[in-house]
Amino acid sequence: MSQRGIAILGSTGSIGTATLRVIARHADQFRVVALTAFGNATLLREQVESFRPQYVGIVAPNRDADRKWANGAECLVEAATRPDVDVVVNAVVGAAGLQATLAALRAGKRVALAHTASLVIGGEFVLRACREGGGEIIPVDSEHSAIMQCIGARTESEVSKLILTASGGPFREWDSERIAKATIQDALNHPTWTMGRKITVDSATLANKALEVIEAHYLFGTSYDRIDVVVHPQSIIHSFVEFVDGSVIAQLGFPTMELPILYALTHPKRIADAPARRFDPTAASPLTFEPVDLGRFPSLALGVQAGCNGGAAPAVFNGANEEAVCRFLAGRIGFIDVPRAIESALAALAGLRADSIEDVTAADAAARAHVRELFH
Amino acid sequence: MSQRGIAILGSTGSIGTATLRVIARHADQFRVVALTAFGNATLLREQVESFRPQYVGIVAPNRDADRKWANGAECLVEAATRPDVDVVVNAVVGAAGLQATLAALRAGKRVALAHTASLVIGGEFVLRACREGGGEIIPVDSEHSAIMQCIGARTESEVSKLILTASGGPFREWDSERIAKATIQDALNHPTWTMGRKITVDSATLANKALEVIEAHYLFGTSYDRIDVVVHPQSIIHSFVEFVDGSVIAQLGFPTMELPILYALTHPKRIADAPARRFDPTAASPLTFEPVDLGRFPSLALGVQAGCNGGAAPAVFNGANEEAVCRFLAGRIGFIDVPRAIESALAALAGLRADSIEDVTAADAAARAHVRELFH
Repeated sequence: MSQRGIAILGSTGSIGTATLRVIARHADQFRVVALTAFGNATLLREQVESFRPQYVGIVAPNRDADRKWANGAECLVEAATRPDVDVVVNAVVGAAGLQATLAALRAGKRVALAHTASLVIGGEFVLRACREGGGEIIPVDSEHSAIMQCIGARTESEVSKLILTASGGPFREWDSERIAKATIQDALNHPTWTMGRKITVDSATLANKALEVIEAHYLFGTSYDRIDVVVHPQSIIHSFVEFVDGSVIAQLGFPTMELPILYALTHPKRIADAPARRFDPTAASPLTFEPVDLGRFPSLALGVQAGCNGGAAPAVFNGANEEAVCRFLAGRIGFIDVPRAIESALAALAGLRADSIEDVTAADAAARAHVRELFH
Repeated sequence: MSQRGIAILGSTGSIGTATLRVIARHADQFRVVALTAFGNATLLREQVESFRPQYVGIVAPNRDADRKWANGAECLVEAATRPDVDVVVNAVVGAAGLQATLAALRAGKRVALAHTASLVIGGEFVLRACREGGGEIIPVDSEHSAIMQCIGARTESEVSKLILTASGGPFREWDSERIAKATIQDALNHPTWTMGRKITVDSATLANKALEVIEAHYLFGTSYDRIDVVVHPQSIIHSFVEFVDGSVIAQLGFPTMELPILYALTHPKRIADAPARRFDPTAASPLTFEPVDLGRFPSLALGVQAGCNGGAAPAVFNGANEEAVCRFLAGRIGFIDVPRAIESALAALAGLRADSIEDVTAADAAARAHVRELFH
């Protein structure tokens, strides 16, 4: 079998580095043809030396950047649409990843999608690009990868419900008052998953689960009333699919992003891999499940409602959340201000048009501007 | 879609009556064309009045039997091979079910197999009949149905390990001395599953799990070193499949045989059904797993070893176990005598030929005779 050409957008982040570890173990199957990073030139240089890609791009070059590298946000689209690329791993953080997803799908590529915002902001437009360009979207999120693995070759009409699991984050057992005053360190102290800082905060507010519900809605064509969330503190079962006959299939394993990344590269096939830790039910016991408490985690309720409302609301939710989390991580606002900012933006920007990709991109920008104003 | 014709062998037992409940809910999809029972003429008559099959057979007729019914063991094969039969649900208890499985497969039928002994005794010969006759085997055991659902359309080469779950039975927490003295009532007091008496005792000795390991070996072509058993007292996860990339898929739900029965009729499709109780992770929490203790459950160790030894050993194991359990249920021997009988038969009958279906049937008979002698 010839090697598949891989472009990694966001190669210096958590998903990007995990992807390179997976590819290094399977050099006979995959070759890195393009790498892009946001600004970490030092790590990018090391990756370039190890993997020798044909194309290197850096969005925000500093003085450590190589002068031969492409630069600026355009490098994402350039890397994603090269003819030698078969799979685009989109692990960009922030709204900039959307254009790369669209371009890759229009060019008929497989997108291994870690950029949840692509579907949250772009939803229908991303699906249209996928249909029209002949591309395909394989999710890298552990929950969506689990669902895709559970559905397998079965048809959507046989699926009755998706149940996304949530670790519950670091504040699962905290009361509302204590959560309101949580510090950056508290929020970054995730119990089961090692991830980037932004998504780790999203896992503390449970905004991540709202984003995942919206992503699942688009990926699997499932209406919101048929998508549930359950808290599963051990993060062993990565999601459940209930079928029309009442049977439930789940995908599980000790938490690692390397498995969903590899699966996104090899789907629908699987190739032999040696994960850090094979699943062992007795070592994983007990597995527990709790209802999710929307009262203590208002970001989740707001995000799911935004999804149900449709139109530009999911883009507003995502933009407001990203901007607020950015400010929280900079120490400029409190943890409680994150859902407050989202709620304020959704109220102020209700009814924005969503007739085109430009509309939803504008809604995203308006939400960010609203949050900046709010904490001015 | 035209209705599929169903023959139920063993219609008055636990699986047979559950199959009729499933068919009654889906009368648009399935029609009962043949029913056979061992000797319960009263219940069989009720079933005949409700479902109006074209063919009725009773193996051991008593005076309540209808004179128009076929009788004797031949009725199993007659029912299984009728031209109007698409699926044969083989829920016969005992070695007699083997001939019906072979005949149905040779006639190109789908066999919904609840008769585990068919594969334990007949193994390679059953698979050969299936290949040559163009039939197919869909397991009805909850564990094997789970595995088939987890594997889905994937190829065997992608499967690295099967993990069968075991409730652990009523003696899971008993020590060896107490187990040795268990009464019939103790053994029939199963914590999670309602089943026939013979299989309930097998679930107390864990002989059932040995039979299932052997069945899985033949059904899925998995070598014995890649089949594990784990104790899972809640019986919610019905089995796990580990794939070569380390991903694990499980099938789960509250315990009911109606789901695997329906799936065996509709595979590879699913049809909408209203199970008694939809799965709810919070209601099922916690799920626990423990290693199996072969020391306290020698029947399991003996059965798996018989499977590994191959030849006639699985048939000897099955025959000795059935005969011993029959005697235990009749109050003639103690619980501890069941594994003792198996061990004695396996030692005495090691090295029997297994070159034909006649050889393994003879081994089964020899094992039963050995156990009868032992307790004479």
